[in-house]
Amino acid sequence: MGGCAAILHYSNTPTLQFNVMPMQIIEHISEMQHWSDATRRDGRRIVFVPTMGFLHDAHLSLVRDGKKRGDRVVVSIFVNPAQFSPNEDFAAYPRDFERDRGLLEREHADVLFHPSVREIYPEGYQTHVNVDKLSGLLCGAHRPGHFQGVATVVAKLFNIVRPHVAIFGEKDYQQLQLVRRLVRDLNFAIEIIGHPIVREADGLAISSRNIYLSPEERQAALCLSRALVRAACMVQRGETRGRVITEAVRGGIEKEPLARVEYVTLCDSATLEPVEEIQESALLALAVRIGKTRLIDNQILKP
Amino acid sequence: MGGCAAILHYSNTPTLQFNVMPMQIIEHISEMQHWSDATRRDGRRIVFVPTMGFLHDAHLSLVRDGKKRGDRVVVSIFVNPAQFSPNEDFAAYPRDFERDRGLLEREHADVLFHPSVREIYPEGYQTHVNVDKLSGLLCGAHRPGHFQGVATVVAKLFNIVRPHVAIFGEKDYQQLQLVRRLVRDLNFAIEIIGHPIVREADGLAISSRNIYLSPEERQAALCLSRALVRAACMVQRGETRGRVITEAVRGGIEKEPLARVEYVTLCDSATLEPVEEIQESALLALAVRIGKTRLIDNQILKP
Repeated sequence: MGGCAAILHYSNTPTLQFNVMPMQIIEHISEMQHWSDATRRDGRRIVFVPTMGFLHDAHLSLVRDGKKRGDRVVVSIFVNPAQFSPNEDFAAYPRDFERDRGLLEREHADVLFHPSVREIYPEGYQTHVNVDKLSGLLCGAHRPGHFQGVATVVAKLFNIVRPHVAIFGEKDYQQLQLVRRLVRDLNFAIEIIGHPIVREADGLAISSRNIYLSPEERQAALCLSRALVRAACMVQRGETRGRVITEAVRGGIEKEPLARVEYVTLCDSATLEPVEEIQESALLALAVRIGKTRLIDNQILKP
Repeated sequence: MGGCAAILHYSNTPTLQFNVMPMQIIEHISEMQHWSDATRRDGRRIVFVPTMGFLHDAHLSLVRDGKKRGDRVVVSIFVNPAQFSPNEDFAAYPRDFERDRGLLEREHADVLFHPSVREIYPEGYQTHVNVDKLSGLLCGAHRPGHFQGVATVVAKLFNIVRPHVAIFGEKDYQQLQLVRRLVRDLNFAIEIIGHPIVREADGLAISSRNIYLSPEERQAALCLSRALVRAACMVQRGETRGRVITEAVRGGIEKEPLARVEYVTLCDSATLEPVEEIQESALLALAVRIGKTRLIDNQILKP
């Protein structure tokens, strides 16, 4: 399997830069829109990196990518209650604003947009955006309301930040495709960039939720990325049948006693509809609970 | 009742201007966005008047209002299939593009945006916007899906035209309030203007659907505006009880044999929730079928 591991992208150690630039912190929507208007009038290209904070190296690699793609980088930190189901971890979701601010300053982000929940969802709020088909597949089937919450807050943030470009990580592949569809369908004039999954040295996809894992669970969590490597190897050796691949992947994960598979699906990489056979390429997507922590990972497979 | 009739606004005869200015006709979204970007960069204020075409004097008074409120006026003509129920009059809805174009040229509109249905809802389209509470009240209770269609196309048109100001007629009062809520909730940086109802000399609110009325129905349709005048008179004489007012209004309309009341509601003028007593002010809204034609009208009542 050694050669196949190179199929996955691995994290770079962050380069610490001590030449700290002034970063603007904006909490109010009207101020953010005003900044954006003025920046656009000046002919500057605005790149937007939306996050829920508790930043890690995958977020920072999005910011670094953003610095290359435009003149100004806006990072938002907003833990969006609307995308958590009632039984999910909204209250417990990790937050550390001061640490996040320091990390973004070192990456030379230009603006940190950090609104309150009340600012985003004021009294009387009642508007929702739905990307119908894409919201019901994969994670959507297991997280009712999640993608309505994502689509709504992304539409709002796009109108608030008014970027030319927005960057999303490919770990949340379904979210990325949903945002692409949302942008096309609602005619946002925004270029959407998908950034490759950033991984720890041992292959685990970096996620804010990895902090929930105990040392044993952290070890067990390697079953996700190993399953993707196994699938990529099968395809390199000529396997294209969806059922054979997903069953092998599922079997591999189920050997791990702490893991409980939520789904393993081979699907079209744009529509996310299941496919039975890989033609040009297909997405292998999986969601697995390691103890109480829900992890996702994915990989494009090409014969 | 003579004195009370002055409460309603009456139409002005259109002033024909023969000094025709060049008006740009745009059919494609990308071209419209490009025009809007360039116009904004030039520091021009864009006013938007969305319509379904078959223009009448009420539309033209919105355009005239628009000319005063900004530097450039964009009028869209798009009969939006998504806001018609399957049993409604989408196919039969009146259309006359060449006449509309001539009328807009005479009003010195700067751009006529006239996209095809396929341009607005391409293959694979799947995104919808809902303004939840406002969509279920008044007309929403009788036209399932209508306000989802309205909210979705308005969100799209706002992203396509990117205006500073948008003008909507107050005849579609619920639509106007829904757009105001949509703009606040999704953070569109657009000022929404409500334009007073424009009426024929005898009081009938001008509507594209008036063309469906036979001469007898046209006469019968006066029961709507007369009912509003009656209600305004009651309030001027001190009546504030919602039930007394709506029952008198309903009774007055039901005396007309060709009329069938769909609803007569006294409600809060912002939330559209029913009110039992007029405090500062309230909206009296009604929908009535005259033969097969569904007409609406409304009036703000102030004690």
